Amino acid sequence: MTENIIKSLKKRDSRTISRCISLVENQEPSYLEFLSSIFPYTGNSYRIGITGAPGSGKSTLTDQLIKIILEQNLSVAVIAIDPSSPFNGGAILGDRVRFVNDFKNKNTFFRSMSTRGAQGGLAVSTKLVADIFDACNFDIIIFETVGVGQVEIDVIEAVDTVVVTLVPESGDDIQMMKGGLMEIADLYAINKSDRQGADRLYTSLNKTLELNEYSDWSPDIIKTIATNSKGIDLLYKSIMRHKDFLGKSKVGLRKLNQRYIKTVKSFISNFLIDEFWSNKIDNHIKKELNLDYNKRISPYEMANTLLKK
Amino acid sequence: MTENIIKSLKKRDSRTISRCISLVENQEPSYLEFLSSIFPYTGNSYRIGITGAPGSGKSTLTDQLIKIILEQNLSVAVIAIDPSSPFNGGAILGDRVRFVNDFKNKNTFFRSMSTRGAQGGLAVSTKLVADIFDACNFDIIIFETVGVGQVEIDVIEAVDTVVVTLVPESGDDIQMMKGGLMEIADLYAINKSDRQGADRLYTSLNKTLELNEYSDWSPDIIKTIATNSKGIDLLYKSIMRHKDFLGKSKVGLRKLNQRYIKTVKSFISNFLIDEFWSNKIDNHIKKELNLDYNKRISPYEMANTLLKK
Repeated sequence: MTENIIKSLKKRDSRTISRCISLVENQEPSYLEFLSSIFPYTGNSYRIGITGAPGSGKSTLTDQLIKIILEQNLSVAVIAIDPSSPFNGGAILGDRVRFVNDFKNKNTFFRSMSTRGAQGGLAVSTKLVADIFDACNFDIIIFETVGVGQVEIDVIEAVDTVVVTLVPESGDDIQMMKGGLMEIADLYAINKSDRQGADRLYTSLNKTLELNEYSDWSPDIIKTIATNSKGIDLLYKSIMRHKDFLGKSKVGLRKLNQRYIKTVKSFISNFLIDEFWSNKIDNHIKKELNLDYNKRISPYEMANTLLKK
Repeated sequence: MTENIIKSLKKRDSRTISRCISLVENQEPSYLEFLSSIFPYTGNSYRIGITGAPGSGKSTLTDQLIKIILEQNLSVAVIAIDPSSPFNGGAILGDRVRFVNDFKNKNTFFRSMSTRGAQGGLAVSTKLVADIFDACNFDIIIFETVGVGQVEIDVIEAVDTVVVTLVPESGDDIQMMKGGLMEIADLYAINKSDRQGADRLYTSLNKTLELNEYSDWSPDIIKTIATNSKGIDLLYKSIMRHKDFLGKSKVGLRKLNQRYIKTVKSFISNFLIDEFWSNKIDNHIKKELNLDYNKRISPYEMANTLLKK
């Protein structure tokens, strides 16, 4: 049975892929066994994160990258993370899904994910879905995320190459640079680079990077105009240059190991918490709720009391 | 000792407040006992969340609200949540801090929080810091959050009144509306409402709200121009109208209870996980890491193995 599923995944049968994603997202009964069964077939896809402020053209950039990847006869799956849609299934991306799936071959697959679908948390679900794509032997998996909230950071830390997209003359970008994006970026795309201020942004970013020479890797800065397909080939080359670097420097292996450890830890956390709450201790809290708020024992004391039981 | 701290908090001594915030953010040894000791003095502040897309003018709107609140001889503490700054302490808000603290009295306090400072997670830290402000007897606590990632949703679910800010002619807003913000909004501010498209946004929002009549509360839509202080008084009145509604309908009590339960649960989760990882099981994982990635047992099996130990 599982063998058949794995075969279908390897053929990138889109119905099988969708069914497996639902299984994992909804944490259906057998999802953990399923994940275990595909695990031996994972670890091969190259994972790229595209992140940056809203409006910086991440989705257009991603679409252009898809084209270049397909031209190399490589396959690519895209996970668009949309935490801003907590309550619906990311349906706003409908048009996009149609566009990307228009390539009409089995070398590409597009999936948007929002908080709502993700039972065990969006960051965890995203990574598990990536493992499904990994088992499908997609050469590349792109994670496209808006901004850098906690979920995005959790996701981004687990990819191989992080591309940060910036736009000239956007105060947001400067803030994001100052705010720490520089420490997760493996390379930069200055998108909409036909706009005024592109050169200035390039120069200032370049200067800042020179000051930050703390690692063996020096990030490229690529000027792109995604809507005109300009600079995308350079962007792709730069990503591949980083891939080579990872392979040679063992940073890549470290990333892979961190991903493994994090997944183990998140499973353990969920198991511990599920087990604890399945015991009937909620009545104890309910009694306390009948008291006026500030007559209750503090949440910390309540937690201790419950743990001692 | 603790008694002195509580006294100083009640006087809103800014050095004491800052010290207590650090205690909680850094999870210093005594932070849980401290939180327990202030708990009986909490539950009195009214909590308002201001959320919306970047550039919708949340911070200007908040600043204007502060002014109105102070004019009523009430006090207000502000927590600006800035998850986009994972690696620095939110220093980009420096100018703003100076501005707000310019009011130079003890009726206002401003604090920005980012992922970096928050040891136990930003959402949890934010709520604990709010409890400190609550113990200071601030009449109102404003949570200002960019967008609606998971952290923001966790925070926003714990406030009494959620204000969603929208801007005319911004595709983002329509997306956010469709994307679920409507289900958490208690009222709307159409900010920058002198811009073209404000009336259209008002009408379309109004129509959508009429279709969504699923609760006893019907959200107001307030047109504001925060930079000109226009509409802020109406916004404030609308917030107070919602406050009255909560008081009369017991929804308010339910929110308070949910906050209590969530805090208990998050403490328990942290305790369980800390306890588990303090046992020396990491060696087991390390051994596995020496194997090739896809020769390892799956993270799920590893989690099970470790739990059985």
